[in-house]
Amino acid sequence: MTATVSGKMVYRLAEGGADMVSLLGGKGAHASEMARIGVPVPPGFVITTETSLEYFRQGRRLPDGLWEEIVRHVHVLEEQTGRRFGDAGNPLVVSVRSGAPVSMPGMMDTILNMGVTDATVGGLAKMMGDERPALDAFRRLIQGFGDVVLGIPKARFETVLEAAKERAGAEFDYELQPDALQDLIGEFKGIIQEATGEPLSDDPWVLLKAAVEAVFNSWNNPRAITYREFQGISHDMGTACIIMAMVFGNLGDDSGTGVLFSRNPGSGERGLYGEFLPNAQGEDVVAGIRTPQRIQALRTAWPEIYRQIDETARQLESHYKDVQDIEFTVERGKLYILQTRSAKRTASAAVRIAVELAGEGVLTQEQALGRVEAGEVSAVLMPHFVAEAKAAAIKEGRLLAEGVGASPGAASGVVVMDPDRVAAVAEAGQRVILVRQETSPDDVHGIIKSNGVLTSRGGMTSHAAVVTRGLGKPCVVGCEELRFEADGRATARGKSISEGDVISLDGATGEIFVGDVAAVAPRPDELAELNTLLGWADGVRRLQVWANADTPEDAHRARANGAEGIGLCRTEHMFFAEERLRHIRRLLAIGPEASQLIRRVSELEEALENAPASEREAMRHRLEEAKARCDSSEAVQGFHTELAELERFQTEDFYGIFKAMEGLPVVIRLLDAPLHEFLPDYGELVQEVGELTRRIEGDNRVDAWLNKGRDLVNRSASELEKLAVGKRMMDWLSERVSLPQQEDEVALRAELEEKERALELVAHLRESNPMLGHRGCRVGLTMPEIYEMQVRAIVTAGCRLAEEGSPVRAEIMIPIVSHVNELKWLRPRLRAVASKTREALGIYVTYLFGTMIEVPRAALTADEVASEAEFFSFGSNDLTQMTFAFSRDDAESKFLNHYVETEILPRNPFNTLDTRGVGRLMRMATEAAREVDPDFPIGICGEHGGDPRSVAFCNQLGLNYVSASPFRVPVARLAAAQSALGQITTEEGSQQPRLL
Amino acid sequence: MTATVSGKMVYRLAEGGADMVSLLGGKGAHASEMARIGVPVPPGFVITTETSLEYFRQGRRLPDGLWEEIVRHVHVLEEQTGRRFGDAGNPLVVSVRSGAPVSMPGMMDTILNMGVTDATVGGLAKMMGDERPALDAFRRLIQGFGDVVLGIPKARFETVLEAAKERAGAEFDYELQPDALQDLIGEFKGIIQEATGEPLSDDPWVLLKAAVEAVFNSWNNPRAITYREFQGISHDMGTACIIMAMVFGNLGDDSGTGVLFSRNPGSGERGLYGEFLPNAQGEDVVAGIRTPQRIQALRTAWPEIYRQIDETARQLESHYKDVQDIEFTVERGKLYILQTRSAKRTASAAVRIAVELAGEGVLTQEQALGRVEAGEVSAVLMPHFVAEAKAAAIKEGRLLAEGVGASPGAASGVVVMDPDRVAAVAEAGQRVILVRQETSPDDVHGIIKSNGVLTSRGGMTSHAAVVTRGLGKPCVVGCEELRFEADGRATARGKSISEGDVISLDGATGEIFVGDVAAVAPRPDELAELNTLLGWADGVRRLQVWANADTPEDAHRARANGAEGIGLCRTEHMFFAEERLRHIRRLLAIGPEASQLIRRVSELEEALENAPASEREAMRHRLEEAKARCDSSEAVQGFHTELAELERFQTEDFYGIFKAMEGLPVVIRLLDAPLHEFLPDYGELVQEVGELTRRIEGDNRVDAWLNKGRDLVNRSASELEKLAVGKRMMDWLSERVSLPQQEDEVALRAELEEKERALELVAHLRESNPMLGHRGCRVGLTMPEIYEMQVRAIVTAGCRLAEEGSPVRAEIMIPIVSHVNELKWLRPRLRAVASKTREALGIYVTYLFGTMIEVPRAALTADEVASEAEFFSFGSNDLTQMTFAFSRDDAESKFLNHYVETEILPRNPFNTLDTRGVGRLMRMATEAAREVDPDFPIGICGEHGGDPRSVAFCNQLGLNYVSASPFRVPVARLAAAQSALGQITTEEGSQQPRLL
Repeated sequence: MTATVSGKMVYRLAEGGADMVSLLGGKGAHASEMARIGVPVPPGFVITTETSLEYFRQGRRLPDGLWEEIVRHVHVLEEQTGRRFGDAGNPLVVSVRSGAPVSMPGMMDTILNMGVTDATVGGLAKMMGDERPALDAFRRLIQGFGDVVLGIPKARFETVLEAAKERAGAEFDYELQPDALQDLIGEFKGIIQEATGEPLSDDPWVLLKAAVEAVFNSWNNPRAITYREFQGISHDMGTACIIMAMVFGNLGDDSGTGVLFSRNPGSGERGLYGEFLPNAQGEDVVAGIRTPQRIQALRTAWPEIYRQIDETARQLESHYKDVQDIEFTVERGKLYILQTRSAKRTASAAVRIAVELAGEGVLTQEQALGRVEAGEVSAVLMPHFVAEAKAAAIKEGRLLAEGVGASPGAASGVVVMDPDRVAAVAEAGQRVILVRQETSPDDVHGIIKSNGVLTSRGGMTSHAAVVTRGLGKPCVVGCEELRFEADGRATARGKSISEGDVISLDGATGEIFVGDVAAVAPRPDELAELNTLLGWADGVRRLQVWANADTPEDAHRARANGAEGIGLCRTEHMFFAEERLRHIRRLLAIGPEASQLIRRVSELEEALENAPASEREAMRHRLEEAKARCDSSEAVQGFHTELAELERFQTEDFYGIFKAMEGLPVVIRLLDAPLHEFLPDYGELVQEVGELTRRIEGDNRVDAWLNKGRDLVNRSASELEKLAVGKRMMDWLSERVSLPQQEDEVALRAELEEKERALELVAHLRESNPMLGHRGCRVGLTMPEIYEMQVRAIVTAGCRLAEEGSPVRAEIMIPIVSHVNELKWLRPRLRAVASKTREALGIYVTYLFGTMIEVPRAALTADEVASEAEFFSFGSNDLTQMTFAFSRDDAESKFLNHYVETEILPRNPFNTLDTRGVGRLMRMATEAAREVDPDFPIGICGEHGGDPRSVAFCNQLGLNYVSASPFRVPVARLAAAQSALGQITTEEGSQQPRLL
Repeated sequence: MTATVSGKMVYRLAEGGADMVSLLGGKGAHASEMARIGVPVPPGFVITTETSLEYFRQGRRLPDGLWEEIVRHVHVLEEQTGRRFGDAGNPLVVSVRSGAPVSMPGMMDTILNMGVTDATVGGLAKMMGDERPALDAFRRLIQGFGDVVLGIPKARFETVLEAAKERAGAEFDYELQPDALQDLIGEFKGIIQEATGEPLSDDPWVLLKAAVEAVFNSWNNPRAITYREFQGISHDMGTACIIMAMVFGNLGDDSGTGVLFSRNPGSGERGLYGEFLPNAQGEDVVAGIRTPQRIQALRTAWPEIYRQIDETARQLESHYKDVQDIEFTVERGKLYILQTRSAKRTASAAVRIAVELAGEGVLTQEQALGRVEAGEVSAVLMPHFVAEAKAAAIKEGRLLAEGVGASPGAASGVVVMDPDRVAAVAEAGQRVILVRQETSPDDVHGIIKSNGVLTSRGGMTSHAAVVTRGLGKPCVVGCEELRFEADGRATARGKSISEGDVISLDGATGEIFVGDVAAVAPRPDELAELNTLLGWADGVRRLQVWANADTPEDAHRARANGAEGIGLCRTEHMFFAEERLRHIRRLLAIGPEASQLIRRVSELEEALENAPASEREAMRHRLEEAKARCDSSEAVQGFHTELAELERFQTEDFYGIFKAMEGLPVVIRLLDAPLHEFLPDYGELVQEVGELTRRIEGDNRVDAWLNKGRDLVNRSASELEKLAVGKRMMDWLSERVSLPQQEDEVALRAELEEKERALELVAHLRESNPMLGHRGCRVGLTMPEIYEMQVRAIVTAGCRLAEEGSPVRAEIMIPIVSHVNELKWLRPRLRAVASKTREALGIYVTYLFGTMIEVPRAALTADEVASEAEFFSFGSNDLTQMTFAFSRDDAESKFLNHYVETEILPRNPFNTLDTRGVGRLMRMATEAAREVDPDFPIGICGEHGGDPRSVAFCNQLGLNYVSASPFRVPVARLAAAQSALGQITTEEGSQQPRLL
């Protein structure tokens, strides 16, 4: 049963092209492309992927006619190079490489130096003008063939090689002299004879055939299969096999080898950037025989070659429309390009290159937008470590640990572990890195004064991550290898840091270093280039980009970065300042009682209006009673006082933000946080109360004993001696027992009382699952006075600005809605408050009432909800949390990191929107709302608003805007443009988990 | 602009019927219906609802021709009664009542005794044979007219009435004698003159017209409007006005009035049940003038009337096909039926009546099924308080508080507040009620030994509620008015209970009584009747009914109640027994480390297989190292030991359950609970550790001082006296300081150490939001050995039974799935374990692998999930929790109760499925799964499986089964039948919240 491949099995390089990746593999297609456009690649040919599949279909047999084709093409190579395969005098040497249609780095096999045999090695030596490299090529061929084709453990060759080096007193392979190499070749042949029972063939054609089969076989080696399963790559693609003439850079002073970038990959500067080593092969560069020269040295040494290199680099750049990373060899004055690919580059280089390539006409502006990874552009705005300094730190072993890069930028500073101490250290002129297990709203003052934050717990949406992103400070979270010891040190990888030590952190990569690492701030020209690019993006995108901002400073920063509105102003963040926290705590302590008393009065007032005439008198009486109780209630009085205090603060807050935004829309979310977020930690309080109680009790006990003892001694001391002994004992005791001073005890008792009150409140407010708890509009319904206060503050601030002649556009957002009735109850009530406030001030400002869609039920019933709201904003953090049932506070460290590592989940859904689940809810809600009103305004204000793939998804959904933290606004602007241009995919592969 | 009502404006009773409710109102239609079928109702007529709407359309003007129609129909009444309206000698007296198409109790107005005037009161007195009731009727007319028609505050009449009674020394209205009544009539007229400026008309026609208008107007009084808004009732229905001749039961010894039921509403026994008061009006019965006679007394007193009553009762029962609650009056030997309606009845009466009515041929079996409220039938299985005993307890003021009835049944017992003490009290022969703020898995041993549970926190799905329902014990939860005081008492409504006091609780109504209340268990005949009814239900329903059962006892109980399978066997509940808890705690302490070491070995094994030949040796070495570390690890050894221990327990558990179910399906859910549920409370532990630390430290300090002191005294005591004084002082101190014995300290330290270990573990495992945390299959993925152990236990148990020749049907359910990849990872792995176990035992049992749908994302991506599962079961508790973002543990007390009270939510979604939100997800998931496979099996196993409306929804969705707690199985059987017959609606009204 014989079959042949239906089409052509072998292509000369010049016959192929970049569009033939599936047939010729990536490597084959791109070599063909270069050949096609006239770039000097070494001559060669490609056996198609289809042929390898046929090989497997035939039970690992070369299809009929293939070998003849290979032989024919080798003869073509002979003609092209003027050398002959197996010729003793002028031998052709080739490489045999695998190359699949998708990149599978290191998974499949390659054999070099094919064509070197006992018969030809002499001719090769003559050709090279040196015996050593020729023998070494032969040695490498035998070793590679033994490993890849014959499956002999590499270790067996390595052991012999090491022994040879030891005998020769050589440190590096290249130091072995011809005699030693000759011996080694003999020994290697012996290994093969021993392992296979046969001598290594001396016929290069036999070896070539075996090498082609080995390359085919490597498609289905277990490593490759496992890799494809992990990556969800089809097993049906097969691999191509590329056979190319080898060129040699080590044939004398007119030869050499090098690597270059068509532009500087660090800065983006135009001009060749790279290295060159004369009279050397690529592996010699790796081995570090000699220090390479800068590529510019060729300009004077070999002006013609340099001109060719420069021209070819420009040609490749123009052709591939991107900066290129090029490997080349010069063999006896002739230039060969071995490989070219788009170069990796830093974020700011990427921006500069894209802008300049567009300026040069290589790219259109739209293409230029696609050349920059949107997620990276925020890094351009931040300080970053000098690449060399970071590399040095790693080399010096100063990498302490790696966590999750949660907010980009680089920072160094002294470690402070207590947020209360940050200010003092900072004021003493030191830069501070706050290091904590995790942060809470209580710690914000410390975060603000620090230069960077490192936490051992939490993920991309943890408190530390969200707050630092808002502030534009570098932050690394979830660094779980960092262990906090009882003695105040934190340790990882056998190193430890304490307060006062200097560390450096990279908020983009999550790396933590011991000691200082040099960092640089972005230069003005870098920012200018970014602005150019983002300007192009603005011209292309449909989606608006707003920002999340809680303060006037945030608002200014957001506008500076191009935000067109504020999509989320979190009012609770305004309560965390210490003075305000005191007010809100008192408010929460008395609020429930006060609100109930107030509600009772209004219920009775309403009932009285509707009561039958006969019941009015009795009801009026009850109303009077309720009013009296309300008026005399300390809780109610305190409640009103605290509300008035907070209203004063909030009015100022909103005034400042409105002013900063100059009439751009500002979406203000009414109080959302679970109430106990405003309170200290329960466990800590329990501990403190216990401690204080026992200090007071214990000290009192000792005190009582001592007094009684003194008394006894005094009364019994009829003799001096007695007195003396008694006294001495008492002194001894007194000295050792620290008696609490009267004032101490008073202070202790006061502290205890305060803690006990706090504990009672926390115990009352705490919930088993606060994220699913009493928060958002649920508080608005149970204590309506809080939302009313906030609406009054918003409208008052708006009116004040309007009076000053400034434009204001306020949008009031009600959070955690799960049922339309919540809005039906709240909206008219808050509208009435707003109207009353406007009337009282005599100024008319407009505002919208909308709702967050962050509870799955709100999305599922969006048709109803939309009829009671004027806009939607997806709270995608919470929506993701509820849809997955993943706690934002815990999931990452408990299991989510494990999920992402083992590819149970393609990516962390708190970073990138889960389009299939959460996205489906968003789609349902969007469609339902647009059914109610085709122009219904919808945005998103979760962390996803700054993630490129998520932004693209929102663009596809047809949302009006995304709202990101101020520092992610540039990311969103670029991503929105890329999505409009179809440059970002949001599809999820049907990916498999790793089945370990 | 005049318009007339398009159709007929006035209907004589006999012209109408029960099908004309929207036109004649409920009261009018049912009176008409009775008239139509020949029941002796007083003559009368009805003005249509449409007429009242026209009245409003014309700006509160009677439509043209209406008054003429009314007058004509009054004349018809005159003919029918032989009396004349306004006739001084033989006056016709009528009532004028409102009557809307839907019941709006007490919201609208009625005027009685219309037709009594100065001119006619004498004739009425003659007709009544007594002046007093005639004058009293006149007094009432004036008072009612003044209040309802003229809007004069009732209080003005009441004040005068009270003064008159005081003057006359009368306690009750009816004690006022004619003279006094005459005076009162004069004074009442004076009030009207004063309030309106005009005297009360003496023309009964004028008064009648005003009364009709007042009835119409009452449709739009503020009370009624507000009520309709609250209830979501349309404002466009209007009210009918019913004018009926009044009949008098107080015209002598051949008159009287009574109330009866056509069957005993307490027991369901056939035969009249009621009371009769000779020579009295209805209001006299209410006033309690005389003790009424049992209705049976009439059998001998007035045999013909009794026969008529009995016959009419049967006629009404047959006609309405239900037991009737009938008001009647006998006027001079003639029977009038004033009102009939379906009677309220106890659950067991409802069952008996339905079964017997079907037996009598009044109802078909299908109709009989519709006559019983499905939700109530589980109460038939439980003891319940004797109605009279409960009424007496309330009268005696023994009602302590009211909470949420969470598990039906009645129980009395002594209060025990510590679950650890329950056993001792119970073993001493006392019945126990466990009273706690809330319960946790730690308390289960106490719940099991108690007779009932009362908690001050939590709702229908709280721990206490779920566990007691499973056990069939009465339980009241969320009784927030009960406050726990520091001195160990619990107080409510000014009463307090302490440990040792007797209380009684009604788990159906949520009432708590101080002291004993007599209760009775269901009688065999009650159970037999229930079984008859449920047998009919089984013949009708399509939906299967399974049960949630965790033990063989549960399984037996479930089958006894008719369960056809186990839909949820919660394996974690099996771990809560004390001995097992120890094992699982140790498992959790060492599991993560052990599991990681084990995983490392298998990863390396896998890597080795796939490694290129060259890397094998190095890898083999690393594998050996990892194996050695694993083998020598105490954690791994302990982990295997604990797993083996637990596997032994679990195998026994499953064996017992499989055996009890005799081949019926058993769905076993693998471990689901958040891990820290197996651990003590964090706050308590912190407190205990602090306490112990300071006890040890404090005692040591004292100890040290005393020793040093003794030493000092001894060394210095050169004289006897010195010694004596020193000694006396030391004795004094020693006496007052309780020195810890050496053993005490050792014990304390051991305790401290244990607590500290526990605290460390809890601190490590606790989560901010455990419901969204590390639970279910997330544990199965991070510590796969636990699920593997459970699968081994299931398969081993199944094999053992199979070996004994018993049938087994096991279904293994994976909880908390949010992404299909979780199943893709777990299923093959667990399948392999199952196969290996079967192979090792050499027995082949089949099993299914399915998943719970309880995370919104699983429902949203059910198409993917279904392709990796063999069945679905909706975990509707969690699904509701996540979809609403309502924490099951907290929501009710924090805000959900408030939501239900203020009708923000139509009902508690944890009790009854929210069809619009959660139900939509269920529908999406069901449709997606059935798309994959039209026969894909789907059930529900949340608490909703025992709720009638939810069962009906599941039936409509086309689920295969509902699974309820064993005691709710009868509820589900009946509800499934009712749904199949279209007797339960699942529609949600588009209801408004109360806008207070």
